[in-house]
Amino acid sequence: MSVPAPTVTVGQYLARRLLELGGNHLFGLPGDFNLALLDEMLDTSGLTWVGSTNELNAAYAADAYARTTRGVAALVTTYGVGELSAVNGIAGSFAEDVPVVQITGMPDSGARARGALLHHSLADGDHDHFARAYREVTATGVVLRAADAALEIDRVLRVALERSKPVYLGVPADVAVARVSSAPLRRPLRPAPSDPVALADLRTALADALADVGSLTVLAGTQVHRRRAEAGLAALADHDGLRVASLVGAKAMLPEEHPASLGTYQGALTIADETRDAVDGAELLVLAGTVLSDVMTGLFSHGFDPERAVQLGVRHAVVDGVTFHDVRLEDTVGVLADVVRERRFAPLPPVVGAWPHVAAPACSPDEPLTQNALWSTVQSRVPEHAIVVADAGTSLYGSLELRLPAGAELLVQPIWSSIGFTLPAVLGTCLAAPQRRSVLFIGDGAAQLTVQEIATVLQRGLNPVVVVVDNGGYTIERVLQSPKAVYQDVTAWDWLAAPALFAPGRDVLTAAVRTPAELARALDEALGDPSRAAVLHVHVGADDVPPLLARLGDAVHAGTAGARHP
Amino acid sequence: MSVPAPTVTVGQYLARRLLELGGNHLFGLPGDFNLALLDEMLDTSGLTWVGSTNELNAAYAADAYARTTRGVAALVTTYGVGELSAVNGIAGSFAEDVPVVQITGMPDSGARARGALLHHSLADGDHDHFARAYREVTATGVVLRAADAALEIDRVLRVALERSKPVYLGVPADVAVARVSSAPLRRPLRPAPSDPVALADLRTALADALADVGSLTVLAGTQVHRRRAEAGLAALADHDGLRVASLVGAKAMLPEEHPASLGTYQGALTIADETRDAVDGAELLVLAGTVLSDVMTGLFSHGFDPERAVQLGVRHAVVDGVTFHDVRLEDTVGVLADVVRERRFAPLPPVVGAWPHVAAPACSPDEPLTQNALWSTVQSRVPEHAIVVADAGTSLYGSLELRLPAGAELLVQPIWSSIGFTLPAVLGTCLAAPQRRSVLFIGDGAAQLTVQEIATVLQRGLNPVVVVVDNGGYTIERVLQSPKAVYQDVTAWDWLAAPALFAPGRDVLTAAVRTPAELARALDEALGDPSRAAVLHVHVGADDVPPLLARLGDAVHAGTAGARHP
Repeated sequence: MSVPAPTVTVGQYLARRLLELGGNHLFGLPGDFNLALLDEMLDTSGLTWVGSTNELNAAYAADAYARTTRGVAALVTTYGVGELSAVNGIAGSFAEDVPVVQITGMPDSGARARGALLHHSLADGDHDHFARAYREVTATGVVLRAADAALEIDRVLRVALERSKPVYLGVPADVAVARVSSAPLRRPLRPAPSDPVALADLRTALADALADVGSLTVLAGTQVHRRRAEAGLAALADHDGLRVASLVGAKAMLPEEHPASLGTYQGALTIADETRDAVDGAELLVLAGTVLSDVMTGLFSHGFDPERAVQLGVRHAVVDGVTFHDVRLEDTVGVLADVVRERRFAPLPPVVGAWPHVAAPACSPDEPLTQNALWSTVQSRVPEHAIVVADAGTSLYGSLELRLPAGAELLVQPIWSSIGFTLPAVLGTCLAAPQRRSVLFIGDGAAQLTVQEIATVLQRGLNPVVVVVDNGGYTIERVLQSPKAVYQDVTAWDWLAAPALFAPGRDVLTAAVRTPAELARALDEALGDPSRAAVLHVHVGADDVPPLLARLGDAVHAGTAGARHP
Repeated sequence: MSVPAPTVTVGQYLARRLLELGGNHLFGLPGDFNLALLDEMLDTSGLTWVGSTNELNAAYAADAYARTTRGVAALVTTYGVGELSAVNGIAGSFAEDVPVVQITGMPDSGARARGALLHHSLADGDHDHFARAYREVTATGVVLRAADAALEIDRVLRVALERSKPVYLGVPADVAVARVSSAPLRRPLRPAPSDPVALADLRTALADALADVGSLTVLAGTQVHRRRAEAGLAALADHDGLRVASLVGAKAMLPEEHPASLGTYQGALTIADETRDAVDGAELLVLAGTVLSDVMTGLFSHGFDPERAVQLGVRHAVVDGVTFHDVRLEDTVGVLADVVRERRFAPLPPVVGAWPHVAAPACSPDEPLTQNALWSTVQSRVPEHAIVVADAGTSLYGSLELRLPAGAELLVQPIWSSIGFTLPAVLGTCLAAPQRRSVLFIGDGAAQLTVQEIATVLQRGLNPVVVVVDNGGYTIERVLQSPKAVYQDVTAWDWLAAPALFAPGRDVLTAAVRTPAELARALDEALGDPSRAAVLHVHVGADDVPPLLARLGDAVHAGTAGARHP
């Protein structure tokens, strides 16, 4: 083994820390203020550059990569124009607890200090505008100086790990190539462990709380998989006396065929009464890694009192009103499992089968495709271990009604709900999990926002199945207000022409779909052939929606949601 | 005439103010937090909705619209996801003095005050993150309350007018529909006029400054046309003893055939020695609406001392070191013209012809196209009154060497330099000036960032000529550093397939171009037919650059530019 060099450049140091943390792919775009940084970072073996078509798309891809690996992802942009294009993506990472490291190549320290009127600046001599803007959407950040660059990189990356939030690193061009000691790299970077005293006290408190109840309902949120606590949750669910429901975004976090699985809970919009009753009427409810936002709670129609529940957060827990700080979710789930094991609840009847999946299609195979028929046709075809990716419109609500097979997961963005997110997201999922099939459902309106990332996906030889659900506009908005307004329509595209523009010469399966039979054929062909990607252009009615979205629309118009509708 | 209603909704009030200021088109995208606002605004006759494919593209289109009309433009986005996607575009408007009104539809005031965990928020209860981020890139802003909504709308719009900068208006859903008195609308909104005392004092100071010199060189910047002071500049240039050079971004601000025109000045990179000498060696230099940034000054290689020049800014002037506040550029240019008229300078020899345009192509018509041949072929074909739009890469540097015919102008973004800006920009130019031909030059790397806006352009029946200059990547970055790095390449697209995807069934001229002869034919056909748009896919070498960019690269590598290269 070669003796490590005593010094490395700041760019190399950063690259090696990212590799340690599983960020093996570097997303982003070049720009004149990050070329020196990129040259240093890519000089580090093991780090693969993934150039995107624009920075927002790159941020989305990085986010989905981190979601899929349950680790960090890194994004490199240039100063001003690049980083500001990505800010919506990073804000989404914040809202949804995804640790993306936003790295901006900046003008050199001297020019910054002088207030030089550089391009990519506001030409007002203030070079901190964009770093300040990023403070609003990141957990921490810094513009690096050579003097303490390694220490600050470590500090910032640890915050990303500990809080599961995006962070900001500004790297002036001269700092990128400055040399620092490589000695800190001899110790791997780890997040702060749980406080053992707090953890022991939590165990006692949980034992007390469980003493007087005969069963437990766990409501699991997305933070469980952000913290890689899914195995712990599954171990917990194996004990008697427990049932587990998931929030939107955490669907199938516990495999849906597990006897304890209650499926997805969404307040009054919950599909199955059994699921809603088990959560709202729980003897004791455990909120594990949950964020109780509007979409998560069926527009705040949940029937439980979070203050009375046991709360297991990313870095804290609450039992009987008492807060336990510095305890990590992945540890507290394990502590709860220990307490449950000792408590020895009586068994509960299994609930699998109590909550329905989508009904069989009501129309014949050759009638025009409805949303109902679309999702029914998909239901029987989702491959095991698939990553189903669904955009924030009708696709989200349709996919929530699927029952997912073993190992499959659903990637959605229920809090940030930025339309178009999922198309670049499949770049991230395909790179993070090349052995699994990514199957994307996205509306035509949403897909227009980020369409060009198809080029990167296809030309890297990745193999997602891209299902463009074309309803001629923003149908989810039509459900909410003014369905005939001019702003609800988008221009009509021929999605089958996309591969010819974006990846000429590539072998891509394309199919136009207007009936259930055509959809079945196209999906069977696409899913049967993992050697190539597929783009399916699926036509449905402009006002047709999945049942769950219809119920949401009814709730909004009944005024139960006020202006807080999703 | 109908009696005006005594009250209007806040959305209607805002729409009527925007119409007063020339913002007849409303750019943006719908989202659930702006539907009520859009319904109110579009209820106002005269306001046309221009839905874009994504918010960054909409911001770019609005920016170019305002540049072309020399007025304000308005952009409506939704909360969080929408507004943050647009922030790069608005920052560009700030850097380049373009008054775009960024209007965000927000959650209702009650939910904001309660800190409700809504989608499109960071789910941390703080609903002011994005308005705070916008403070970094706007001149002023407000989240409206019903109580003083009209007064605040007027205040914010006046700042946009007075400072020629973007502003931010957050409109909670309940405020959008709240009713306010329509009485303020009986007085049109005007920016504060120049201070007459300051203007009179300035006149005296200018007369003193001009007394001892025999001639004047004016260096004109982009703020001249932002303030609609071009006619004033032309009137000034008609006097003896004056010559006018323009900065990048203000090319042809004074028609290039005018006897006083010196063409474009760019410090040591200035094409003609006569131009550089006339500016650097001026007896007295007047900086009219200039921003002396890196690209403007040939990487700070200008040979004059700005402190010794007369400075005419947007709202202030400096003569002999003394500052005159609250004087508007459009007025101070007129005062200078008065003083020059009274001063009666002796005539100077005309300079037209002294500065060259691009050389005739050195290669034969059927050899592979070079950048030199490209711009020579374009030179003789730019239509009068054309709006030439050139993206920030090789296209900017090529277009700067053109001599523009009567009435033609060049729209570029030399300070912000956000690649991809110009493709959505032609949506703005075409809508703002439907009788003029927009001719876009954009590199393939740049065009990938914003390609989908072609759909909006084509499907609205607009007729730009889109020239995609394909050099397989980011050639301007290749000039600067690491030309063979993996991050310099972009995926190869078949641009001729773009209309089939984005506007199926539309009649669009497409042509692949690989030689000067093919370019001449395609341009002649495209420009000869204003009834339809054209997309030309023009192939040039990956390392071939226009002469001006080669000089820039040499300057960077000679170290004269340090890390401040553009």
